[in-house]
Amino acid sequence: MDETLINIGKRAQAAERQLALLSTRQKNAALRAMAAALLAKQDDILAANHEDMIQATAMPKKFTDRLLINPQRIHDMAAGLETIADLPDPTAQIDRGWVTADGLQILQRRVPLGVIGIIFEARPNVTADATGLTFKSGNAVILRGGKEALRTNIAIATILRQALADQNLPKDAVQMITDTSHAVAADMMKLNDYIDVLIPRGGRGLIQRVVQSATVPVIETGAGNCHVYVDKDAELAMAEKIVVNAKVQRPSVCNAAEKLLIHQDVADQYLPVLAKDLFEHGVELRGDAAACQIVPAMHPADATDWDTEYNDLIMAVKVVPSLEQAIDHINRHSTHHSEVIITDDLNRGRYFQRAIDSACVYVNASTRFTDGGMFGFGAEIGISTQKLHARGPMGLQQLTTMKYEITGNGQVRQ
Amino acid sequence: MDETLINIGKRAQAAERQLALLSTRQKNAALRAMAAALLAKQDDILAANHEDMIQATAMPKKFTDRLLINPQRIHDMAAGLETIADLPDPTAQIDRGWVTADGLQILQRRVPLGVIGIIFEARPNVTADATGLTFKSGNAVILRGGKEALRTNIAIATILRQALADQNLPKDAVQMITDTSHAVAADMMKLNDYIDVLIPRGGRGLIQRVVQSATVPVIETGAGNCHVYVDKDAELAMAEKIVVNAKVQRPSVCNAAEKLLIHQDVADQYLPVLAKDLFEHGVELRGDAAACQIVPAMHPADATDWDTEYNDLIMAVKVVPSLEQAIDHINRHSTHHSEVIITDDLNRGRYFQRAIDSACVYVNASTRFTDGGMFGFGAEIGISTQKLHARGPMGLQQLTTMKYEITGNGQVRQ
Repeated sequence: MDETLINIGKRAQAAERQLALLSTRQKNAALRAMAAALLAKQDDILAANHEDMIQATAMPKKFTDRLLINPQRIHDMAAGLETIADLPDPTAQIDRGWVTADGLQILQRRVPLGVIGIIFEARPNVTADATGLTFKSGNAVILRGGKEALRTNIAIATILRQALADQNLPKDAVQMITDTSHAVAADMMKLNDYIDVLIPRGGRGLIQRVVQSATVPVIETGAGNCHVYVDKDAELAMAEKIVVNAKVQRPSVCNAAEKLLIHQDVADQYLPVLAKDLFEHGVELRGDAAACQIVPAMHPADATDWDTEYNDLIMAVKVVPSLEQAIDHINRHSTHHSEVIITDDLNRGRYFQRAIDSACVYVNASTRFTDGGMFGFGAEIGISTQKLHARGPMGLQQLTTMKYEITGNGQVRQ
Repeated sequence: MDETLINIGKRAQAAERQLALLSTRQKNAALRAMAAALLAKQDDILAANHEDMIQATAMPKKFTDRLLINPQRIHDMAAGLETIADLPDPTAQIDRGWVTADGLQILQRRVPLGVIGIIFEARPNVTADATGLTFKSGNAVILRGGKEALRTNIAIATILRQALADQNLPKDAVQMITDTSHAVAADMMKLNDYIDVLIPRGGRGLIQRVVQSATVPVIETGAGNCHVYVDKDAELAMAEKIVVNAKVQRPSVCNAAEKLLIHQDVADQYLPVLAKDLFEHGVELRGDAAACQIVPAMHPADATDWDTEYNDLIMAVKVVPSLEQAIDHINRHSTHHSEVIITDDLNRGRYFQRAIDSACVYVNASTRFTDGGMFGFGAEIGISTQKLHARGPMGLQQLTTMKYEITGNGQVRQ
């Protein structure tokens, strides 16, 4: 185990014990100070990013687009911290309280998780965004970003740490791992003594690597093989609107739809219309046998298509004989992120919502709404696709746990 | 991966999809039918247990005490299932609901976790108790008990499964793994495709083995290195009552106190009295240098004592110079289960509750109250000592997760 990493863990834990005791006012003032510092010292960030960009000229444009920092993006990071300052403090919340038969007063209180590890890829704005969310919820954060963004990440973290120190707060609330070797990342995933939870942010490859290697508990985010099911009682106009929005409005993200299921009773009539809409938006369609027979311009789907998240202008299409079969197919192939039924039948809509085992189950709306901002959470650290602890969009509250504060006057157990 | 085990997983998942759709009335009727069947067929259980007991004659009495089933214990299992039938159904609960800026109605609804794996040791009553809790919360359960109790466990599971079948419910809601080899247990801990969460129940060795080997998410239960801190503002009479109760009322369980910390200002006066009380109850005391100086009859504690859960009539004692040092010591050495401060000072009591990072933090009451029954949860599956998902006594609610049911009328994202 890397010694530097262990020391980072120890410092994070020491900082965390102080953070847990701060008032909301102190935390909000610190967040605003961090925002102001990013703007005041933006030249440091731009200079560091310029060096990172020079080293990354051989990388694909999609990658350098994410890596680039400009004054607008610094402004967005600062505004993000201000927004988080304005949100309610989840650790100020007492979920419930009661008095037991023995006269003990029990308060169930929200408290920070402790030390959160974030492993991320190219986007340096994660350094500021993740710090804002973890800090507001009373946690210390250990960040490990991609090596191509290292100078930028260090510049941002240095500014945030100095802003904390200027407020007489522990700067080790935010630490950036500067050794971007795989060995240190592997050690970080096993740092159970010092990290309470790991949240990977990035592509599927990164997330799967963390899920499979980590002994620290992981919150899995971001895999979205989302389905739109057009039921026999769907209005065609609504189906067109939702299918197109869910697929094409931003195809690269996890809440975009990847699969279209359609009830056989309306497939002959609806599928040519929906396919035409999608073709006009440049979507490649891959159909099962029945779908290809109705719309011969589709490519035939193979068995792997049903489990694939394209994150691109591709959609696989399947004709199903019943609502039950649509539900079975989705529960078998989905990543349990977001699914939608389009129907005018109340009972079928409610049954779909009950029977589908996913974080977000929609009736008559686009899957693209699965988002902390759209849900009204104000900010999000990701979309959890697991069932333990957090499911769906994760806001500040999901970065906390609870404890019981129990007050008696001498009670003992009989 | 063991083929039989994969098939058990597949059957559990199929059963679970049906369970998730049952009404509370159906589940309660099934629980009562299971209770009645245990009583009606108690001879089958007693006969199987008789065979297990014959094979276990070489085992220590402590072990065979746990293994033994008699009519009273069968009655208790049946009564436990009746109690669970009377408790509120956690999956009938809608935690909250709201309407977003776009007019989407979002309901946050409690739903089952899915398939729960329970790995346990000698007590065959876990078969009935765990089935009652997992079934009521809508989950399928896969049980893997100790090999010494196999016949008894199979007899109980067979009766429960038949009772489900008689109600036209899926009997695979409850499955017992009959191959008690370590290889199959190891495979079970990696059955991520079919098991949503593992809950080990038993001694520390079992729990640590599961935590370290499992890739399936684990809820860690039962480790309790609990502390009683007697502050300088404590009443001696209250301190005596609580220290004795927390240590001796049932020393073998996880919520019994293992450590006594005492403020140096009152140590000279209080410690001889507390030590006398504990000695009279047969407790062996192991003190730090200051404590041994005040009460020479104590053994000197060594460094390992502070991290040891004795589960026995042993207690380590430390004199601390301040509240801060007591908190530091506890946060460093505790298993984050239950700790108590005894004090009459309001501010010091509240500060202790805030600063201690444990599931249950008491002022002026015995740690022995950390229990689902004492908390008013009606039943419990264990005491979680982790921070993710569940913390402290776990009742029915902690065996569920949530999903968002979102209903619109054609909303798409701009």
